[in-house]
Amino acid sequence: QQSTVIMALSSRAEPFLASNPKSYGSIHISLLGDLYDETSNPEGAILMSVAENKLCGDIILERLQEHKPFTQAMLNYTDGTGLPTFKPVLAEFMTRDVLKLGDKQTVKPEQLVVSAGCTGLLFQLSTLLFERGDSILIPTPYYPAFEQDFGFLGGVHLIPIDPTNAQYDLTLEDLNRAYNLAIERKQPPKAVLIANPHNPLGKIYSPEQLLMLVSWCREHKIHLISDEIYALSVFNPAVDGAFHSIAALLDNDLGEYVHILWGVSKDLGSSGLRVGALYSHNAALVRAIGANNTAHQVSNAIQELFTDMLQDATFMRYLIAENNARIQKNYLLLTQGLDALGLTYVPAGAGIFLFVNLQPLMREVSYEAERELHLALVEKIKWSLTPGEPCKHTTPGYFRVCYCWVSPAGVVEAMKRLKSFKDSLN
Amino acid sequence: QQSTVIMALSSRAEPFLASNPKSYGSIHISLLGDLYDETSNPEGAILMSVAENKLCGDIILERLQEHKPFTQAMLNYTDGTGLPTFKPVLAEFMTRDVLKLGDKQTVKPEQLVVSAGCTGLLFQLSTLLFERGDSILIPTPYYPAFEQDFGFLGGVHLIPIDPTNAQYDLTLEDLNRAYNLAIERKQPPKAVLIANPHNPLGKIYSPEQLLMLVSWCREHKIHLISDEIYALSVFNPAVDGAFHSIAALLDNDLGEYVHILWGVSKDLGSSGLRVGALYSHNAALVRAIGANNTAHQVSNAIQELFTDMLQDATFMRYLIAENNARIQKNYLLLTQGLDALGLTYVPAGAGIFLFVNLQPLMREVSYEAERELHLALVEKIKWSLTPGEPCKHTTPGYFRVCYCWVSPAGVVEAMKRLKSFKDSLN
Repeated sequence: QQSTVIMALSSRAEPFLASNPKSYGSIHISLLGDLYDETSNPEGAILMSVAENKLCGDIILERLQEHKPFTQAMLNYTDGTGLPTFKPVLAEFMTRDVLKLGDKQTVKPEQLVVSAGCTGLLFQLSTLLFERGDSILIPTPYYPAFEQDFGFLGGVHLIPIDPTNAQYDLTLEDLNRAYNLAIERKQPPKAVLIANPHNPLGKIYSPEQLLMLVSWCREHKIHLISDEIYALSVFNPAVDGAFHSIAALLDNDLGEYVHILWGVSKDLGSSGLRVGALYSHNAALVRAIGANNTAHQVSNAIQELFTDMLQDATFMRYLIAENNARIQKNYLLLTQGLDALGLTYVPAGAGIFLFVNLQPLMREVSYEAERELHLALVEKIKWSLTPGEPCKHTTPGYFRVCYCWVSPAGVVEAMKRLKSFKDSLN
Repeated sequence: QQSTVIMALSSRAEPFLASNPKSYGSIHISLLGDLYDETSNPEGAILMSVAENKLCGDIILERLQEHKPFTQAMLNYTDGTGLPTFKPVLAEFMTRDVLKLGDKQTVKPEQLVVSAGCTGLLFQLSTLLFERGDSILIPTPYYPAFEQDFGFLGGVHLIPIDPTNAQYDLTLEDLNRAYNLAIERKQPPKAVLIANPHNPLGKIYSPEQLLMLVSWCREHKIHLISDEIYALSVFNPAVDGAFHSIAALLDNDLGEYVHILWGVSKDLGSSGLRVGALYSHNAALVRAIGANNTAHQVSNAIQELFTDMLQDATFMRYLIAENNARIQKNYLLLTQGLDALGLTYVPAGAGIFLFVNLQPLMREVSYEAERELHLALVEKIKWSLTPGEPCKHTTPGYFRVCYCWVSPAGVVEAMKRLKSFKDSLN
């Protein structure tokens, strides 16, 4: 019966049908009904496995309530690449606040495509830039969903760029090794994908590394996709220096091969509202995605909401500052807790996650022991994390901790539980 | 330069890069800045080339203003197949009002996937049910965008089911001819797609034809996709009889091969808010689309708005009745105008369009003359229509008239202009 059903579908459906009930995503969903709350459910689950920032929800919600009234135009078809009233506002906001291009350079509205989240755009890039069987090079560890975004529908292979230095810096040697691996596997490399700030490391790439990467991509005539969705979540530039968009480093001269992603999901804590944008100077790509985007359009009403919010410069300055102060507060509570337990981590100055070394809690250094620890933390102290294995981290025992999914009290409670877990091992 | 740029994209991008400035869609967009208004712009363009119903915008907008406040949950990720609060309400509304299943049968929430409009779902069906190079059989004339929805990304060939009778009825002979054509072309037929009520004809399929079609599909083990997006736009059942959903005719026993589409775009005049749903009993298909749907999700806030509206049964009854009364009014103004000019059309009792024979205004019966007339109507009387050629109608000279894009006064004005156009030919 089952096989007949699956046979009635296409081979293109196969990757979508594989599922793993023990994945961090499935565990996250299974725990949603028993969430920790300081007063009403102090024994509840503390979820830190999904990269969402809920710390400024109160501020964002209050601002969203002040939305404009619905109009007839919102009910009708419009430009499939984005609402003509939204795109100029988004272009100005990206120029000034996200990419920080300075006064001379600007993002033009016609170089943007607005889509139902950046996932919708990554899917489109996977089909429109690559032939099935091509590959994309990605520094490890990486955001695990990139595998679905590029592999499932586009059939694009992910080739790891494994760092050989403890700082996870991008080096020419590591890039060349990944490139040669792709050639060797007969999976033509067509692009490099980076997340900057980095997910899951919370690191910021230096201008030198980014310019080296652009030169390398241009030399090899391959695309560079820079996912800058955490551009405004920089709470401590002292760690890695300030964030520099690739657009700013290139004086906004992107050329045909550099493409940038940003959206409201992370920096504006609104992943559930589904708004992402691609910024590219490749007119053919923008046109192709514009046509394909009909299937990924954002409700006009939601675009109007963000038109209203993004053009309120005073509010946006306040929100960005307050958001980073709140991220910083949770970060400090988390790292102080880990320090007290003698656990190490990759210091982060950006993003909403910390990459933590939990090897001391494992019976051995292996992916099997990492999986055991992941499930034990869920079972014994109801604390869920993202393991390093799906991020393709080369050393077992590291976990991504998404500490902005909970209140400061939740972070403190998680550290208390982790101490009891650690104590129980002795 | 141009070819280098295109070479940097994938061959999968090619269909998206073809464009035709003289297409009815491009003409529609070019005229949006000069719209007819009875008082402020009486010489403006009257657009009747795009299937949108704006007649009840006033009622819908008033209801949308009463939306619920934004909540933290709206800002966060949720079930990618649709909001857990929306799907049960949608399932109940579809059971009772759209599919009219009676008291015994129900649509289950887990058999629905909510996506950014039905276009998002047609795209997904094109990739998940078909291999590249397979074919889908479609009765002509058809909604032209089906070519993009199935062909561009999915690489699915459209094989016409050309009717051989004046009533455009579905017959076994026509189905078999299309099937054999697909086999002959080595484009394996995997599905039949119908729009019921029919677009562009505004006809309703009879229960006998639908049951014949289901039997035929089951016998050939191919899918049946029933696009029922105009299910609630039935303003005169006296023309073709009442609308019957395939789900109701099958006593809701859809099996693995029958899939139904509905959304808010047409019946609730909200194409700009982007909400469509797939209803299927094929658990593997629902699961595959559920996973793929991450890239096509609808903003939670919009799903909440429709949760609120669809569960208000009193309002929905009123809206549906009023909408059909207003469609009927515009239909009568249009057909009376055409009658007075001696022009014929396919009588319609549903949908928001009329298929009109404008051969008497052409110098000869050819697609070239049809294209000339299309452009002449735009140029000389600023009246835009959808020609029959992109709908693959086998006889040149027919046009789809979308008469719900304008007010009653707009219909009257269009008929006045058409008379002057006709008179100028003599």
